[in-house]
Amino acid sequence: MPAITGEEYKKRIGAMKSEVWLDGKMVEGPITEHPAFRGAIQTQAELYDLQHDQKISETMTFSCEKTGNKIGASFMIPKSTADLGKRRSMIQEWARHSGGLMGRSPDYMNTVLASFAASVDVLEGEENCYPDRLLKFYESAREKDWSFTHTFINPQSNRSKLAFLEEDVTNARIIKRLEQGLVIKGAKLLATQGGMTDEILVFSAPGAQERCHAYGFSIPCDTPGLKFVCRQSFTHNESSYNAPLSSRYEEMDTVVIFDEVLVPWDRVFLHDNIKAANQFYTQGKFVPFTLHQIVSRQIIKTELLLGIANHIVETINISEYQHVQSKVVEIIKGLESMKALLHYAESNAVKDEAGIVIPSRKSLYVAVNQFQELYPRFTEIIQLLGASGMMTIPHEADFKSSLGKQLDHFLQGVDRKGEERVRLFRLAWDMTMSSFGSRQTLYERFFFGDPVRLSQAIYQIYDHQPSMHFAAKMMKKKS
Amino acid sequence: MPAITGEEYKKRIGAMKSEVWLDGKMVEGPITEHPAFRGAIQTQAELYDLQHDQKISETMTFSCEKTGNKIGASFMIPKSTADLGKRRSMIQEWARHSGGLMGRSPDYMNTVLASFAASVDVLEGEENCYPDRLLKFYESAREKDWSFTHTFINPQSNRSKLAFLEEDVTNARIIKRLEQGLVIKGAKLLATQGGMTDEILVFSAPGAQERCHAYGFSIPCDTPGLKFVCRQSFTHNESSYNAPLSSRYEEMDTVVIFDEVLVPWDRVFLHDNIKAANQFYTQGKFVPFTLHQIVSRQIIKTELLLGIANHIVETINISEYQHVQSKVVEIIKGLESMKALLHYAESNAVKDEAGIVIPSRKSLYVAVNQFQELYPRFTEIIQLLGASGMMTIPHEADFKSSLGKQLDHFLQGVDRKGEERVRLFRLAWDMTMSSFGSRQTLYERFFFGDPVRLSQAIYQIYDHQPSMHFAAKMMKKKS
Amino acid sequence: MPAITGEEYKKRIGAMKSEVWLDGKMVEGPITEHPAFRGAIQTQAELYDLQHDQKISETMTFSCEKTGNKIGASFMIPKSTADLGKRRSMIQEWARHSGGLMGRSPDYMNTVLASFAASVDVLEGEENCYPDRLLKFYESAREKDWSFTHTFINPQSNRSKLAFLEEDVTNARIIKRLEQGLVIKGAKLLATQGGMTDEILVFSAPGAQERCHAYGFSIPCDTPGLKFVCRQSFTHNESSYNAPLSSRYEEMDTVVIFDEVLVPWDRVFLHDNIKAANQFYTQGKFVPFTLHQIVSRQIIKTELLLGIANHIVETINISEYQHVQSKVVEIIKGLESMKALLHYAESNAVKDEAGIVIPSRKSLYVAVNQFQELYPRFTEIIQLLGASGMMTIPHEADFKSSLGKQLDHFLQGVDRKGEERVRLFRLAWDMTMSSFGSRQTLYERFFFGDPVRLSQAIYQIYDHQPSMHFAAKMMKKKS
Amino acid sequence: MPAITGEEYKKRIGAMKSEVWLDGKMVEGPITEHPAFRGAIQTQAELYDLQHDQKISETMTFSCEKTGNKIGASFMIPKSTADLGKRRSMIQEWARHSGGLMGRSPDYMNTVLASFAASVDVLEGEENCYPDRLLKFYESAREKDWSFTHTFINPQSNRSKLAFLEEDVTNARIIKRLEQGLVIKGAKLLATQGGMTDEILVFSAPGAQERCHAYGFSIPCDTPGLKFVCRQSFTHNESSYNAPLSSRYEEMDTVVIFDEVLVPWDRVFLHDNIKAANQFYTQGKFVPFTLHQIVSRQIIKTELLLGIANHIVETINISEYQHVQSKVVEIIKGLESMKALLHYAESNAVKDEAGIVIPSRKSLYVAVNQFQELYPRFTEIIQLLGASGMMTIPHEADFKSSLGKQLDHFLQGVDRKGEERVRLFRLAWDMTMSSFGSRQTLYERFFFGDPVRLSQAIYQIYDHQPSMHFAAKMMKKKS
Repeated sequence: MPAITGEEYKKRIGAMKSEVWLDGKMVEGPITEHPAFRGAIQTQAELYDLQHDQKISETMTFSCEKTGNKIGASFMIPKSTADLGKRRSMIQEWARHSGGLMGRSPDYMNTVLASFAASVDVLEGEENCYPDRLLKFYESAREKDWSFTHTFINPQSNRSKLAFLEEDVTNARIIKRLEQGLVIKGAKLLATQGGMTDEILVFSAPGAQERCHAYGFSIPCDTPGLKFVCRQSFTHNESSYNAPLSSRYEEMDTVVIFDEVLVPWDRVFLHDNIKAANQFYTQGKFVPFTLHQIVSRQIIKTELLLGIANHIVETINISEYQHVQSKVVEIIKGLESMKALLHYAESNAVKDEAGIVIPSRKSLYVAVNQFQELYPRFTEIIQLLGASGMMTIPHEADFKSSLGKQLDHFLQGVDRKGEERVRLFRLAWDMTMSSFGSRQTLYERFFFGDPVRLSQAIYQIYDHQPSMHFAAKMMKKKS
Repeated sequence: MPAITGEEYKKRIGAMKSEVWLDGKMVEGPITEHPAFRGAIQTQAELYDLQHDQKISETMTFSCEKTGNKIGASFMIPKSTADLGKRRSMIQEWARHSGGLMGRSPDYMNTVLASFAASVDVLEGEENCYPDRLLKFYESAREKDWSFTHTFINPQSNRSKLAFLEEDVTNARIIKRLEQGLVIKGAKLLATQGGMTDEILVFSAPGAQERCHAYGFSIPCDTPGLKFVCRQSFTHNESSYNAPLSSRYEEMDTVVIFDEVLVPWDRVFLHDNIKAANQFYTQGKFVPFTLHQIVSRQIIKTELLLGIANHIVETINISEYQHVQSKVVEIIKGLESMKALLHYAESNAVKDEAGIVIPSRKSLYVAVNQFQELYPRFTEIIQLLGASGMMTIPHEADFKSSLGKQLDHFLQGVDRKGEERVRLFRLAWDMTMSSFGSRQTLYERFFFGDPVRLSQAIYQIYDHQPSMHFAAKMMKKKS
Repeated sequence: MPAITGEEYKKRIGAMKSEVWLDGKMVEGPITEHPAFRGAIQTQAELYDLQHDQKISETMTFSCEKTGNKIGASFMIPKSTADLGKRRSMIQEWARHSGGLMGRSPDYMNTVLASFAASVDVLEGEENCYPDRLLKFYESAREKDWSFTHTFINPQSNRSKLAFLEEDVTNARIIKRLEQGLVIKGAKLLATQGGMTDEILVFSAPGAQERCHAYGFSIPCDTPGLKFVCRQSFTHNESSYNAPLSSRYEEMDTVVIFDEVLVPWDRVFLHDNIKAANQFYTQGKFVPFTLHQIVSRQIIKTELLLGIANHIVETINISEYQHVQSKVVEIIKGLESMKALLHYAESNAVKDEAGIVIPSRKSLYVAVNQFQELYPRFTEIIQLLGASGMMTIPHEADFKSSLGKQLDHFLQGVDRKGEERVRLFRLAWDMTMSSFGSRQTLYERFFFGDPVRLSQAIYQIYDHQPSMHFAAKMMKKKS
Repeated sequence: MPAITGEEYKKRIGAMKSEVWLDGKMVEGPITEHPAFRGAIQTQAELYDLQHDQKISETMTFSCEKTGNKIGASFMIPKSTADLGKRRSMIQEWARHSGGLMGRSPDYMNTVLASFAASVDVLEGEENCYPDRLLKFYESAREKDWSFTHTFINPQSNRSKLAFLEEDVTNARIIKRLEQGLVIKGAKLLATQGGMTDEILVFSAPGAQERCHAYGFSIPCDTPGLKFVCRQSFTHNESSYNAPLSSRYEEMDTVVIFDEVLVPWDRVFLHDNIKAANQFYTQGKFVPFTLHQIVSRQIIKTELLLGIANHIVETINISEYQHVQSKVVEIIKGLESMKALLHYAESNAVKDEAGIVIPSRKSLYVAVNQFQELYPRFTEIIQLLGASGMMTIPHEADFKSSLGKQLDHFLQGVDRKGEERVRLFRLAWDMTMSSFGSRQTLYERFFFGDPVRLSQAIYQIYDHQPSMHFAAKMMKKKS
């Protein structure tokens, strides 16, 4: 059955020999058992298992038109508003299992792939573009339920406006076009889940300016010459009490080095075509589809923050304070706006000539751009409500020690004893203050792009004419 | 035909002898011709005329089930989601004619009345409550298309938390219960359009604490003893070029003095019942219905602000600046969120036992509470974009004078000559900086209540349990 | 005696025949009696009279080294920290009389002149520059206590970054260099107090890019060909009760048209020298001296806002609310920061080779740039505290009418009867919401330049090295 | 010589047998060698050594009037403005060594002690108060250069306004008054550096409501029954490259349990006197003296943040972007305001009858309350500037591995190779995003109290009269 189980996922990943570097050493032995990865891999496996959970498998999968196979619903290319709703339900089911904390959970990448498959018309007839290969690849991925990471962004060596005037020496580029395929050399950022997936999808960053930087392909993660260099791990082999989130959802981010990597032609979707590379983003369905997934997930994450805030309010008994209420309501307002924008985007979806139903890009852009400011503010609210409680976080073992009873007493809350109270604050801390939590905040600050650039994108796609006509009419009214 | 024309409205108002005080004098002669009122009265008349505009009368009116008469759609008690949509369309049609600048346009008050009529169940069987009278009154108002102002709020003489411990000496209260009716003495704030309407609807403020302050009634504006004391007028007899908004939409706000006013029993809907007076707000349909009208209007007003911003950007040619784009996008984000929340409230409407369809209070509360901060920020953006242009506003007559040609030249914009450029900036100024514009800002800051209290209301009505369950589940996950 | 009286000022201005256009007509008769000007002229006369007030004349004037005459202290070029303190005291004395509401009170312009005179070294030896004439002119102005307006800014016809590529058609430029002097044609913005002063000081805007736009001169306001075109007046002939501020402090802003105006050579300080024109701003003492005056004034204005906020809190009895306290404290924090920055700038003043003592530009820039955001926020706080009181503003005549007693009762505050309570709210409204008040807000938003550009100026003048060295050292510490 | 060296400090602490619990175990062996403590202890030792650094020992110490000994300057009770300046210089010297990252560095605690000694007049003649003992204790501490932690705050079990109505069961209280001393039972929060110091100073929290909670004493940290329960450690035995800050400045926070601890009478400064306990804070010199130390330190910390921001801007070459400049200038404005407020507080210091010079509480309160919002914003700016660089943080060992050369190349910045670029971003990350960095942010959010309460304190101590008189005068001006 195409929709895999967690066991199948772990088996596949465990058997690969991807070159993953962590702390100056190459990861040896199955990555599924490595302390820096096993938590997230286990969680991801649980996500796959949910595809087979009787109670919800109807939501989680769809039946492929072509093969009749049960496929993960995030691979689905929506043909109706109901399909959009089904995608959202599936995405939020997974997000609910992972607290919305895995930005690169398979549904994200499956959605990217589906959006690419739904955008092949942009590549049709363009030089060095192979829409058929892309379509075929999508089908393989879908039927085999491959897991993916991706990398689009160039290294940050020079971000000046005029950097393009200088030769780029770090960004991955095509250095040879051989009979067997392209040869790629250079680096790209930041493959989240690098080393934890079957495949890596590689595309040039939006705005490519040279032919050698304009490409799109996918290769197995253990392709020779491909190296994943990890940042420091933010999981420390702690229990789920001590590290309720980082022990389970630490996805890892990696720099990807292409050390003269050969990409076989059947995996090359486009190359040496600047115009096509850029139009694939701007005219294809990448933006509306992935934004739809992102916003669906962010909503669940916000619900979790709201729940944590409410628990803190309850356990230290501060609900009567006006400023406390206002802070909680800030989260509520953000949450309800996000939900409304997502719903509005679905309600205003349009069907294209191919029968594909596309949610409104505009509303989703607004949602994700707002979230870049809302999320950090929400984590700040948790800290302001939690106050000293966010620092009063002894270890699980302290409660098991001879001191346990005293700690249960002295650290009690209004509605729970010390051990349970600290459990709550550990969750709040891991969400908003641990190295893991701060990385989550950074991640949301920049999801889908720098906030300044996202704002500019909205300016550019927005239709300013209706409001200008209205204002012009008001200017001319006679009294 | 019940849905009146502008002419009928003006005739009716012009014939009344309401006691309206302005600048230390009682208004004499027909108020429809008084410089402080005629602009707004004329605009209101145009609104009524739109009910008979062939192109849109389908939207503007509905056919009364009972009488078969064509009635203004804002009187309609919605029985389906389509009815909600029709109400919105009608409200926004009027708002589009008035730039959303008339907070007390008849649709607002009609909606209040409809919400009251839809809430009579709350009064059923309660002491000193007369749901039948209210229903009958609503029907009369609807069939005669009466215009209304209202006044709910107590004078601001003491806002301390413990003010209720002292005897209230200013707030209008019942001083006698006679055979002919109640006698009311005291003052209330702030009847917008006081003197410009047929009737005034009077209810106790939410949170009434004494029986003599717990009431609800409606009386004609020229009832003896009733006095409307105007604030300073913000219209100065200027042309529509010089004062494009205040010459047309200056509604006036009034203090209402009840100088031992007799309210006949058939106009008394409730009295001397604290519990019923408060429950009528909290359990009736006042909140969701009026919020639906308010948010519908605020959206149009935001579109106008966006249009003005876009014109300024165009005429001084600043669209290339990143901070300019971000500022315009701030308005866009607010606008799109408001639209999404309104739509979401309609999509989540529920039908009560009486078959009345009620939009979601939660989403609308969020929208209106956000708008209290968004609107002032939007006006700030207009000022920041307009800069010195907001002060370079010579008089229409200057352009007609011998200097006109030079001013057309020296004050030109990129896309228009001086006279047209100043027309734009006059609009921007009247919207955000004239005495009229600032009053608009204050009005939106406090629409539907003090922002701090509105936020508390959201805290109280929100269901915090789902998020707390979710967080509790996340707390207990094992790794 | 050089430091003039109010009477002398009024006599001089009243006798001039400056060409001032208002509402499509040229002002005729003495401008000192014109309703749009007489309030501000009267206030300005009172300021001059304070120079002769026995109690403070020591503060207000200094004895000229050269002539021994008593001169207004704002003309003084400071030679010691004590001189800086004296300048501040004098400036704040005047600001206290006018609530800090006159941005172009004579001390501002006198300070500009003094800063120019203190910067003649920049012009020394430069082509087409006449430092001696400037010095001599300064001395005349000082000894005669001339009043000034100025105009530096170009019309806003095109603000794009590439506007300089197109021919400028509106900005005032030198069109002829004759034996008698320069001939100037074009327009400039925004001469505040245009028509109310003896002289107008004209300099090219910072960043001039063409020789014909690079100049500096001063001419009498009634020079032939010079026209002042007023914006709409924001004073409406109201009493000081109804319009406590606009009746006294409405300065007027004007577009200045140079209709081939001849500037005699002895009044030309520089011309056709782009480098000198720009360096005169950046290397001269204009920035630190005028900023010192501005910040001194803004502090007093903030004190007034704080006082109004405190009165509102008291009269509606809301001091117990936490959010009310926090709002008042926001003003306090802004005020105390401004005071501290001003003091710090004086404490860090440096003496140049000529013995002139220059306050620290850096601290003053920070203060004025912060104020651009603080001031609008403060006015917002007044509105949020004042709430409905800001709209409940009947006319003075209402209190004198037969209704007066009732209004005194119904509009009472905790500590004052209605007439006095409305007096307070009228002040609050005129400060933050009337057309006059909004223009004050706009004025402070842009004082000394667009906030974005001011921020960039700070970036450029700041010495980033010390902090970078510190961080580098921290990077290298060993554990 | 009283001012100790680092060696002496380490020897003393290493020899103590304080009961410190971490991760469910009691710390065994000398704490100076324990991985969770040795970094901070080493840094603290370096601070002590700076007292003997020839180049600055003049700044770091003063000569005791009484004994002639060289004493750490933070023990000094200032008798002149110069003394205040010397205190500031000394504090900032230490802060510069530790990046301002140690909130409980000895100067903080020494300042608290000095402020207590300077406040003995408040205890004079009060029941159960022993000013002489306090004075004598201060002298011992000063002469022996004891290190201190303190604990004032009650456990957070119930923060409701009415919590005082219920019996407090967690807060440390006096349970017996014996001949040998007081017996204390219960818990207190959050002793930073708990276990790393000679002594712990214990006072009731401000606002004590019961006699048994009103006390003040100091005891050695290894007093029987005294237990320090650590939160999770935020240092992970990493190199100074990987963890430039947490490897050196992780101070640890502890819950303090008093398990029937006997406090001998000569260490009891007050007990069972609610009034005295509270007045000691409000009328003594605790507030101005400690605020002076805090603000002095926070300024240095801000300089470090500014330096980091500047390095990031330089290495990824983004200085040309307007929003980047504005963000850096935000830090500059905060820094300059803090410096100005500190200077202003010193300039406005007053001398009391005892000849003690007290800096202005008002300005310092403003500074510290502003910093509670500024600091988190500054860390946000670092994240927004650093962007993906904040996640691209491989391990030091990666650079030493066979990949090192490639990483040096691919992760290069404009001005430095990969290893140095990552060193910078590691610093930025450890400052603002690691568990250590987030705890720093929380620490500053609540330094000297909850921001809401601090703001209320400012409201209460501020003299509102002058501004009200000014506003009243403006209200009455005649035009």
